[in-house]
Amino acid sequence: MDAPMKVIPEIDRKAGKLNLSPEELAQMIDHTQLSPYKQQRSLEKLCNEAKAYNFGFVCVHPYWTRFCVEQLKGTDIQVATVVGFPMGQNTPDAKAMETKKAIEDGATEIDMVMNVSAFKDKRYDFVKEDIQAVVEAAQGNVVKVILETGYLTYEEIVTACKLVKEAGAHFVKTSTGYGPMGATIPHVYLMRQTVGSDYGVKAAGGIYNFRDALRMIAAGANRIGTSAGVKIMDSYAWARHTDWHIEEIPCRLCPSRKANFDKMPKAVFAYYKSKCVDCPYREFNRFYE
Amino acid sequence: MDAPMKVIPEIDRKAGKLNLSPEELAQMIDHTQLSPYKQQRSLEKLCNEAKAYNFGFVCVHPYWTRFCVEQLKGTDIQVATVVGFPMGQNTPDAKAMETKKAIEDGATEIDMVMNVSAFKDKRYDFVKEDIQAVVEAAQGNVVKVILETGYLTYEEIVTACKLVKEAGAHFVKTSTGYGPMGATIPHVYLMRQTVGSDYGVKAAGGIYNFRDALRMIAAGANRIGTSAGVKIMDSYAWARHTDWHIEEIPCRLCPSRKANFDKMPKAVFAYYKSKCVDCPYREFNRFYE
Repeated sequence: MDAPMKVIPEIDRKAGKLNLSPEELAQMIDHTQLSPYKQQRSLEKLCNEAKAYNFGFVCVHPYWTRFCVEQLKGTDIQVATVVGFPMGQNTPDAKAMETKKAIEDGATEIDMVMNVSAFKDKRYDFVKEDIQAVVEAAQGNVVKVILETGYLTYEEIVTACKLVKEAGAHFVKTSTGYGPMGATIPHVYLMRQTVGSDYGVKAAGGIYNFRDALRMIAAGANRIGTSAGVKIMDSYAWARHTDWHIEEIPCRLCPSRKANFDKMPKAVFAYYKSKCVDCPYREFNRFYE
Repeated sequence: MDAPMKVIPEIDRKAGKLNLSPEELAQMIDHTQLSPYKQQRSLEKLCNEAKAYNFGFVCVHPYWTRFCVEQLKGTDIQVATVVGFPMGQNTPDAKAMETKKAIEDGATEIDMVMNVSAFKDKRYDFVKEDIQAVVEAAQGNVVKVILETGYLTYEEIVTACKLVKEAGAHFVKTSTGYGPMGATIPHVYLMRQTVGSDYGVKAAGGIYNFRDALRMIAAGANRIGTSAGVKIMDSYAWARHTDWHIEEIPCRLCPSRKANFDKMPKAVFAYYKSKCVDCPYREFNRFYE
C-alpha cells in the first residue's frame, strides 16, 4: 500500500495473548462522532479527547471536517470523513465529489459506504466503479469501504471484500453503526481471512468497552471505530493489572444472535438463524430464552 | 409558487370533516422506498404500485432515480429524490451537486435534509445558504426541506420553518423516518400555522394507516410520505363506508410520549417531557404506565 497509513504495531494474535499497550491501542482507534445533531462543543470535545488520549484518528461528518482539521493542527491526529453515509445509495458522482471536497478540507481518510442495493443485484462492476470513483477522488489518501455486514451473508462478505480489494481501496470496514448490526467477531475474522494479512480491516459499530475492542483486534481488526474511545482507554488502563478476563457466552458474540427481523433483508435474517441449527454452541442459546 | 407542483385539492379541514376521496388521497402520497438494501425488484414493485393506485409521486434514493423515471415514463407520476439523506451533515456543495445530478436523472422533486447541527449552533445564515444551494441546483423544481422535528423543540421548529421559507424552498417536511420520531400532529399543525396556507407541508415517518394519514392532513399536511401507501389506500377504500372513526388516547398522538432518551438531544427530550406537567390530558398517561 502506498497510502500514507499509519504503521500498525505487530500484534501477537495467538490464543488471546494480546500484547497491546494502551498507547498502541489508542493509535488504532478512530475516535468517532457521527450523530446528526451534535453541536460545535461536542466536536471540540471530541478533538480535545483525541489529543488527551493520543488517538490515531477522529472520524466525523463532512460538515465537520474543516473544523476538526483546524482543531487538530500541530498534532499527529488525522481526520477521517464519511462519504455516502450511512446508506450508500448515492450516485458514484456524488460520492466522488464529496470525497474530493473532504480531501480539500483536510481529511486524510475516507470512510465510504458500499452500494448494498447494487451489490445485492449482483451489479459487481458498478459496485467496483462506485468504489474506484472514490479512490480516484481521494488522490492516494486512505479509503475504507463500509460493507454494512448486517445486510450480508458470510458468502456475500467474502465477495464484497474481494471487490473492495480489486477496486483499490485500503480498508474493509464492517458497519456504519446505523445498520441492523455492529461489528461481530465472525465477520471481522472472515474479513481478515479474505483480504489477507497485508490489508486494512476496520471493526466499527457496537464496540463499547475494551473487551469488545480487544476481541475485535484478536479476530483480525487493525482499526477500531468507536464513540466510546475514552471509556475504552480508561477501563483498559485500569484493567491491565487486574484479572478482568471474563469469557462471554458464545452466542452473545455471534451475528446469528444479533440478527434483527425488522432491519435486514428477510433472506439474510433466515440465513443467520439457520446457522444455529448445527452450531456446536447452540445449547448456550437457552441462556437467552 | 412558480414551481411545477401538482394542484392539491381543497380540503375542508374543520373539525375532522375531511371530505377526501381515495383518488385525492392517492395524489397526495409520496410512495416511498428508502431502505438501503432493496433490490431492483422492490423498486419495480414500488413503481407498479404507484401506477396501480395512481399515487402522485414516488420517493427514492439517488441511485434509483433514473430507474424509476424510466419505469414511470408515460404516466403523470413524478419522482422525488432524497439529498443529504438521512443525516444532512454534508457540505452545501455536495448537496447541490447531488441535486443537480438527480434533476438530470429526471427527478422533479428534491427532499433534502436540513443541517441540524448548524441549526442548533444558530448558524442560521449557513442553514439558509445550504438550502439555497439546493434550490438553485434544482432549477425551479420542487424542494422539500426535512427538519427532523424529533431533534427540535416547538420554538426551533418555528424558526426552521421561517428559514426554509426565506431560502426559497417549497415544502417543510417533518422527518426522514430514520430519526428519533416520525411525524406528529402537533408538529404538523405548528408547521402549517407557521408557513401559512399557501405553502407545502409534508408529513413523513410513522404513517402506517389511513387514520394516521387523514389525521396528518387534518392537522395541515398537504403531502404524505409513507412506505405503507398500498395499505393506506386499501383500508381507506374499505373504511369509507363504515364507522371507522375511533378516537385515540391523546398521549398516543403526542410528541412528548414519543420522545426517546437515547436518540435525541437530552435537552430536547427534557423539553418534551416537561410539557406533560401542565398538560390537560396528562391523566391519560396512566394508560401507559
